[in-house]
Amino acid sequence: MTTRDAPGQRSETVRRANLSAIVRQVHVRGPLSRSELGVLTGLTRSAIRGLSGDLVAGGLVREVPSRPAGTPGRPSPLVQPDPHGASVLAIEVNVDSLAVAHVGLGGTVHRLVRIERPRSHLSVDAIVADLASAAEPIIAPVRDDPTLVGVGVAVAGIVRRSDGLVRHAPNLGWREVPLGERLADALQTSASISVANEADLGGLAEHRRGAAATTDMLLYVAGEVGVGGNVVMDGVAMSGAAGYAGEVGHMVVNPTGLPCGCGSIGCWETEIGERSLLLRAGRDPGEGRDAVAAVIDAARAGEASALAAMDHVGTWLGIGLAGLVNVFNPTAIVLGGLFERIHPFVIGRVEAILDDRALPATRELVSVLPGALGADAPVLGAAELALEPLLADPASYLRAPRAESVSA
Amino acid sequence: MTTRDAPGQRSETVRRANLSAIVRQVHVRGPLSRSELGVLTGLTRSAIRGLSGDLVAGGLVREVPSRPAGTPGRPSPLVQPDPHGASVLAIEVNVDSLAVAHVGLGGTVHRLVRIERPRSHLSVDAIVADLASAAEPIIAPVRDDPTLVGVGVAVAGIVRRSDGLVRHAPNLGWREVPLGERLADALQTSASISVANEADLGGLAEHRRGAAATTDMLLYVAGEVGVGGNVVMDGVAMSGAAGYAGEVGHMVVNPTGLPCGCGSIGCWETEIGERSLLLRAGRDPGEGRDAVAAVIDAARAGEASALAAMDHVGTWLGIGLAGLVNVFNPTAIVLGGLFERIHPFVIGRVEAILDDRALPATRELVSVLPGALGADAPVLGAAELALEPLLADPASYLRAPRAESVSA
Repeated sequence: MTTRDAPGQRSETVRRANLSAIVRQVHVRGPLSRSELGVLTGLTRSAIRGLSGDLVAGGLVREVPSRPAGTPGRPSPLVQPDPHGASVLAIEVNVDSLAVAHVGLGGTVHRLVRIERPRSHLSVDAIVADLASAAEPIIAPVRDDPTLVGVGVAVAGIVRRSDGLVRHAPNLGWREVPLGERLADALQTSASISVANEADLGGLAEHRRGAAATTDMLLYVAGEVGVGGNVVMDGVAMSGAAGYAGEVGHMVVNPTGLPCGCGSIGCWETEIGERSLLLRAGRDPGEGRDAVAAVIDAARAGEASALAAMDHVGTWLGIGLAGLVNVFNPTAIVLGGLFERIHPFVIGRVEAILDDRALPATRELVSVLPGALGADAPVLGAAELALEPLLADPASYLRAPRAESVSA
Repeated sequence: MTTRDAPGQRSETVRRANLSAIVRQVHVRGPLSRSELGVLTGLTRSAIRGLSGDLVAGGLVREVPSRPAGTPGRPSPLVQPDPHGASVLAIEVNVDSLAVAHVGLGGTVHRLVRIERPRSHLSVDAIVADLASAAEPIIAPVRDDPTLVGVGVAVAGIVRRSDGLVRHAPNLGWREVPLGERLADALQTSASISVANEADLGGLAEHRRGAAATTDMLLYVAGEVGVGGNVVMDGVAMSGAAGYAGEVGHMVVNPTGLPCGCGSIGCWETEIGERSLLLRAGRDPGEGRDAVAAVIDAARAGEASALAAMDHVGTWLGIGLAGLVNVFNPTAIVLGGLFERIHPFVIGRVEAILDDRALPATRELVSVLPGALGADAPVLGAAELALEPLLADPASYLRAPRAESVSA
């Protein structure tokens, strides 16, 4: 229902909370008129005028004349985020590739580079060095810029949120890697670095700007070599006690099945991950991304073994999703990564198995959608993670001397 | 991270929120000094004095002198909930029994009756009639009393929260039963009636006042004939899009296993529910609660078939919990109902399987505990459900003319 320790509210915190409400709205939705902001936040127009003025003076938003809408009445200026008023560096560490991006408030991607890498070079040293080289041209111009709010990192592993320690990344072969510290040294930055699981961040990005932007009850399931997920309930992403929540790939679905990289047996990942798809298609399960692309091409061409592999993955995807639908009662399931790419070949099986196995009351409320952000979902989510302190308390990030008007 | 539609805050809403914070604290924790309330809510002592005064005048709390603590300094009065200042009727509808209770603010149980019933009389008409008879002596004295805040109902089925429609209760044989409306007629009350799933409410009660009162990251799993659950993340109970969340009993753990009452195959319930325990102990799976008690006695006496049944249920309980621990990253798992009663006989297997199958990072953070509230957890949770509107906005429930002092 609500938190045990529901805090009281002091009036001095209200203005900060209201600034946050406005910045969040324009960050996620883009330009909004003051009256739209009034509807979305419940604040009065005069309060919004004052708060927006503070944000303009502080360099975080701009007010621009609204385009004539063809209706009479006083035009209300549009409030929009300033993508150069605050920005972050976003990084993704995955098994086949690395990505680095510079992203502004409002989600504007100023630059994004992705490097494909061989699976034989997954040491922490090699990856950190490659990231530092790739990031240097992007970070150099903003390294000492006060508009750089922080650095967000998405990694294919289990991450302790409090300090960015990568506890275990089975598909990278990492254990207990202080990735945040390593990157702070390599990037030569004093900006705050936040690290989180790639699927958590992919789900965050799909929720903010992708396939799930219209729902606050979301189950995101993403596969590559591993399978992860993120659950958003009432608009809040579930992180668990230490940030490890959402490891849906390690839900047991076939207790007498195949051994999993995590040490258990019959985890969902062993039936629906990349290795299973390749194996069922008659390929070497370690062949990786190019082989997956070949299986997808073969399925498109109607090749029987590829279609059988899709059927296997679709069946087990459905079995696991049926359980998760019953556990979470979401309105949308978004399939990311591998599952976004094979969506056309598995969705029929998935829907049929949900019909057979999910409770009718929950089944009838849920849609299954492919992700909308492609392979960049995790790095875009890393940008959202790095922006979060600013979104939560923009008052701490106002740059110019603050206007004297106090609005609440 | 946070809601898309994070609302702004008007100062007129702050006082109501602060009243709520204080009432919630004393409702859950019992008597607190003003300085303790200050620590818990972040409000100043003078704000608390004013707000508490309003609540005293409105009949919801009392201020009593604190007992001398042996330390010098000005004594601060204790603020405590008034169990007669607001109360609710709480009802439980289960397969083997019905319960009715009258519960006051602060969780004081004024009266509680439980009726054991034969499984052959599970029609809606029969159950509603029996409930009305059992409730009459309890509700009669408070039926027209303004201190009666509402009625909460826990039912062993899947419930739409918005209107209390029981969508499906397989073990009662019910579909699409408007239980709230039926009870409003039978109880002759105009009080607001809220209906929810029994496991959701059992988990709520264990979180507020039971085994999980010290954690805000809780997985509650309860069994009787069926198996249900509740998940509390950051202090917030997960209800899903329509209130159906938490149906962990219908997570598929053994896809080639036994047919489930829900229509699927190999749901967790088929391996760990009452029927499975009885079957594995060589008994008729329909024999019910007395037979379960006999199996527990037999296990205590060391009888091999009873211990084998416990081992089976413990093994599958562990397999399902391992997946849920990976999905939720809770700090506590509370086992309720049947699992509370058989806890001593299954906990060894459960812990061993969690060691083998849960991700180490999540495993090391979680404790498995038996429930502390016994069979009454759901009906006590129903009381919490009925009190929720008052806890969320006590200002609407102040009875005496409100004091003029405005505090925020």
